[in-house]
Amino acid sequence: MSESTAVWLWYPGDFEIHQGMLQNFKREERGMGWPAYWYIDDCNRNVKFTRTYQLGQPTQFIVHAIGTGYVAVNEHKYRFDEVINCETGKNDIEIHVGNVSGLPAIYIEGNIVKSDEGWLASNFVTSALSGHDPLYTRPDQDPNVIEYETKTVPVASHKSVDNGILFDFGRAVDGTLIVTLAGPKTITLCYGESETEARDVEYCYYKQENVSANSQIRKRAFRYVFVPNVTDGEVDLTAIHEFVPKLNPSSFKSDNSLINRIWNVSTETLNLCSNVFFIDGIKRDRWIWAGDAYQANFINQYSFFNEDIDKRTLLALRGQYDIKQHMNTIVDYSLLWVIGILNHYQMTGDKSFLKMIFPKMESMVRYFIQQTNDKGFIYGRKNDWIFVDWSEIDKEGTVSAEQILLLEDYKTMLTCGKVLGKDMSEYQEKYNQLYDNLMKYFWDDEKSAFIDSYESGKRHVTRHANIFAILFDIVDADKQKSILKNVLLNDHITQITTPYFKFFEQDALCKLGEQKRVYQVLLNYWGGMLDRGAVTFWEEFDPKQHGKDMYAMYGDPYGKSLCHAWGASPIYLLGRHFIGLRPTQPGYATFKLTPKLDEFKTLHSVLPIKNGTVTIDKDATKLTVTATRDGGSVEFNGKTYSLKANEKTIIR
Amino acid sequence: MSESTAVWLWYPGDFEIHQGMLQNFKREERGMGWPAYWYIDDCNRNVKFTRTYQLGQPTQFIVHAIGTGYVAVNEHKYRFDEVINCETGKNDIEIHVGNVSGLPAIYIEGNIVKSDEGWLASNFVTSALSGHDPLYTRPDQDPNVIEYETKTVPVASHKSVDNGILFDFGRAVDGTLIVTLAGPKTITLCYGESETEARDVEYCYYKQENVSANSQIRKRAFRYVFVPNVTDGEVDLTAIHEFVPKLNPSSFKSDNSLINRIWNVSTETLNLCSNVFFIDGIKRDRWIWAGDAYQANFINQYSFFNEDIDKRTLLALRGQYDIKQHMNTIVDYSLLWVIGILNHYQMTGDKSFLKMIFPKMESMVRYFIQQTNDKGFIYGRKNDWIFVDWSEIDKEGTVSAEQILLLEDYKTMLTCGKVLGKDMSEYQEKYNQLYDNLMKYFWDDEKSAFIDSYESGKRHVTRHANIFAILFDIVDADKQKSILKNVLLNDHITQITTPYFKFFEQDALCKLGEQKRVYQVLLNYWGGMLDRGAVTFWEEFDPKQHGKDMYAMYGDPYGKSLCHAWGASPIYLLGRHFIGLRPTQPGYATFKLTPKLDEFKTLHSVLPIKNGTVTIDKDATKLTVTATRDGGSVEFNGKTYSLKANEKTIIR
Repeated sequence: MSESTAVWLWYPGDFEIHQGMLQNFKREERGMGWPAYWYIDDCNRNVKFTRTYQLGQPTQFIVHAIGTGYVAVNEHKYRFDEVINCETGKNDIEIHVGNVSGLPAIYIEGNIVKSDEGWLASNFVTSALSGHDPLYTRPDQDPNVIEYETKTVPVASHKSVDNGILFDFGRAVDGTLIVTLAGPKTITLCYGESETEARDVEYCYYKQENVSANSQIRKRAFRYVFVPNVTDGEVDLTAIHEFVPKLNPSSFKSDNSLINRIWNVSTETLNLCSNVFFIDGIKRDRWIWAGDAYQANFINQYSFFNEDIDKRTLLALRGQYDIKQHMNTIVDYSLLWVIGILNHYQMTGDKSFLKMIFPKMESMVRYFIQQTNDKGFIYGRKNDWIFVDWSEIDKEGTVSAEQILLLEDYKTMLTCGKVLGKDMSEYQEKYNQLYDNLMKYFWDDEKSAFIDSYESGKRHVTRHANIFAILFDIVDADKQKSILKNVLLNDHITQITTPYFKFFEQDALCKLGEQKRVYQVLLNYWGGMLDRGAVTFWEEFDPKQHGKDMYAMYGDPYGKSLCHAWGASPIYLLGRHFIGLRPTQPGYATFKLTPKLDEFKTLHSVLPIKNGTVTIDKDATKLTVTATRDGGSVEFNGKTYSLKANEKTIIR
Repeated sequence: MSESTAVWLWYPGDFEIHQGMLQNFKREERGMGWPAYWYIDDCNRNVKFTRTYQLGQPTQFIVHAIGTGYVAVNEHKYRFDEVINCETGKNDIEIHVGNVSGLPAIYIEGNIVKSDEGWLASNFVTSALSGHDPLYTRPDQDPNVIEYETKTVPVASHKSVDNGILFDFGRAVDGTLIVTLAGPKTITLCYGESETEARDVEYCYYKQENVSANSQIRKRAFRYVFVPNVTDGEVDLTAIHEFVPKLNPSSFKSDNSLINRIWNVSTETLNLCSNVFFIDGIKRDRWIWAGDAYQANFINQYSFFNEDIDKRTLLALRGQYDIKQHMNTIVDYSLLWVIGILNHYQMTGDKSFLKMIFPKMESMVRYFIQQTNDKGFIYGRKNDWIFVDWSEIDKEGTVSAEQILLLEDYKTMLTCGKVLGKDMSEYQEKYNQLYDNLMKYFWDDEKSAFIDSYESGKRHVTRHANIFAILFDIVDADKQKSILKNVLLNDHITQITTPYFKFFEQDALCKLGEQKRVYQVLLNYWGGMLDRGAVTFWEEFDPKQHGKDMYAMYGDPYGKSLCHAWGASPIYLLGRHFIGLRPTQPGYATFKLTPKLDEFKTLHSVLPIKNGTVTIDKDATKLTVTATRDGGSVEFNGKTYSLKANEKTIIR
């Protein structure tokens, strides 16, 4: 926020918590609402904003507020929306706003006194710098209302089928419909992400009955709409897609058109799943899951580089200061949330966000520590969900995957605390104890891998903990090699079946230099979805499934989300591990490219960095790299090349 | 709730917390909202209701809900408002309701499956028996909306004055107005609890401008309305008073008509200040204060005997389980809240309410213990308000009045815990330590009284701690006498100036047998207000003030509330200490009357007891006492008389 511009202000985190709550109540299924099944915080109802001005001259201001309350200047009270005069000298300003059903917020218009940086907000317990969001900068707005931009999407094609008309919009739409009817008729709208679903009048996920020309059509996600019992010409539809606009500085074009399509469909998928927050999917669940959001931001870093969505999502997930339960009830999701802040900081170098969220990080980690045993191992309590993944994991007693995440959380606290100049020695001790015990109890020398559980005595090995150990640099090069051989490339170890963990697995494989393998996965898994006509990437894909079976999940014939954020992971894999771009200091103050582009003959790609972009071109003879900012370097074939802002570096 | 009747259900405490929040945002002053200046909880947004039925036959039911969600029967989902069929056998029913802005609630219609006693409600953290309220028993209701009954109040008199018309409704009204205008004019409504206030067009507390015949008139409290710049006949007003009806089993008629009027105006005052909750005053603050509510329920016990208002108020004050700060920010108010539950239990014998609220009592007392020092003394922390009273009290270090309240809180925990069969030995130890240290550090042998503070070394004595010591039986008969002589009847000790503490003082004086003195206070203080034309009792009364000055308080010319709940305390003093009725076992299983009626020649009074009444008559020769229930006794002139249900006991 620039010093000179007024914005809407609220108690920090409250906008995100309130809108996050609304988001988690937006799920719909077959005429039923489906609120998320966990404890959900809301914003504070009662907020006091304060600031003291030392005025060198008289000035005027007007306070607009969402809620009931008043303004006090030096203890004299004024109404909202009236011109208030301030005299020269000290002016203590207090603004009280209560809102019984939504977000209490203020906007102050004035030359000197205005709602810019410097206002404290208090919920009468804790006081901190007010929160704000770049979406809310005008006095005529209400931060309780998301202002979506709309795009008219005409029908791409339609056909008469099953005694009705099937409309195909040719793309995934998240929005409403304009219904034009030839006569005074009421119709039924049957939606589908797939044609199969839309034509299933009985079981399609979304359906609206008794629709007339004036009906309010609920916002839904779909590509197809089937209208039964009408003939061609009786009904016409236009879709109104809703979105919060964002920039996309990235692009990717190689000699492999399939990979190019995978990149573009990935971009479309993440784009649709990220308006105000990173949600899991646009049809289902429409919820904010910490695990999904964690991955979405890795993808975001190589495409939209949208810091705001990530900040909002982190704040919404965490809720109010007091912790009632783990995020989405899942212990590992809370653990990932903490690491996500480290990633956000590495990506953005945003110290003021770090400072703002740090108390909530600390209380989160303290919450973990309260559920560690004498060895420092975190365990699940009643009602805690030790998820890790949908996989056969031996979860008796404490579980190795959770310990590795907790180690990374301690590391996050050490790194972030240091940035803020805090004494973090307590976390170093916790780290050391946990690290030693992890290696002592969970590393199995004979299997040369981490076992799930040591308490069960079964010494069962799954990929998950071993993948985390690679990703979070828990083991040395020798052990990395053992894990690659004994676990990741060992067909006797149960395969990862969920795209959620496939993300981590591909990430780990690339980290260990297995780009060639991962490239084939991109072509087969994501290319396979394109073969089935995907316009966005799915929650899950099994090449063995065909026809109606492709769309079933969770025991529901159309339970599968066909536009799911984590489906966009090729962007991250290509950007991070093939082009090989990463920040080496927070906010890309320094950054490095380690290109591994053997699979491509030619490539032109632009990737975001903080406040800039990097462009990489490959042709038959050379690599050309240009960054719009200083601080970059390229490591290629054992040599290091420094980048200078806006100067081409050519590597042959 | 009878087993056979369906009612609206919610997460326990949530109705009261949500409505309490709304209540605390209802204050208005000169066109401004004035939200209460403390942290305010709201209800849970997301609630799951569960119950398992073992059905001997198939049955049907319909779920109505306020919010979004669904019903699941044995994991099969159904919509709200649709007929659901259950088969014979085990039926696990789950109902999920999310409400983004109000109270999530359900009502189930059915013969077997219905929303009666036995449904658990969970906020996904804690699960407990659902809450309900006798106000919400019909499926067409919405517990987010208070259904006020209305009473049309015609103008009692009007007069032309100050170039306008002054309307006097002859009574305090809390409601709206119907405005009838002779022509197409807009007018200004200036409200007043007093004529002086209404006629003060500039400074009156409530004013509505630009009122036309169709204007929505905000609900306000007033007796007078002045309309400036109109002539007689141009405007007519009718008041619509709003109230939640309640029974009043009490009456009081003596040979002293002034005392009779004091009783009746007290009844009117408490009646107006208690609809859903006990609030402090109808014009101002319209807030729920724990200290005020504590006293209101003592008065309630001798008039309306309304258990529901007391329960709602206790729940609203306490808020959600996690404690953010002291009630109304005041440490002594939190302390009084705990004692208030003991009083509620003594009055009602309601074990199920005690069981429901007990976890919140325990966490409240644990919150106190966290702020005790090594002597067991409770101290104020940053942002804690050690109030006691508006009086010159030496508040250096720990303060005696707070310790006496904490002692009574421990006693409350011992008593209530015992009722619920819990081990309370921890509180006995705390009690003993605190008692010993209170006597050691705060009892001053030389002054034969409790001093405010021992840490300051000033040995300053005020009435407050000494009054609490009498009321809560902290001292023996000898020390009681010392306190009476050296403090209560000692004119060198600063007088109590607030009606809030005057309540406790009169209570203590009566307890020490000073009814004659208190009778004079009734006549002078409350009679004095009647002399000034009061139709309800005021927040404060100073006989030395006259004219406009009578209405000023807190630096505001009309800051004084002229209908203030604690003004009704004569009811309690007369019922408890003159008629002398009190329960000797919870819920009046046994009860006693110790009449001290020397001031009355004749008296006829009916007072409530749990599930009944007691009638007492005095004439020149005898006392006649009748109770509608067994368990009572009368102690009079050193003799004890047992009462039998509905049989007159005549005492000569």
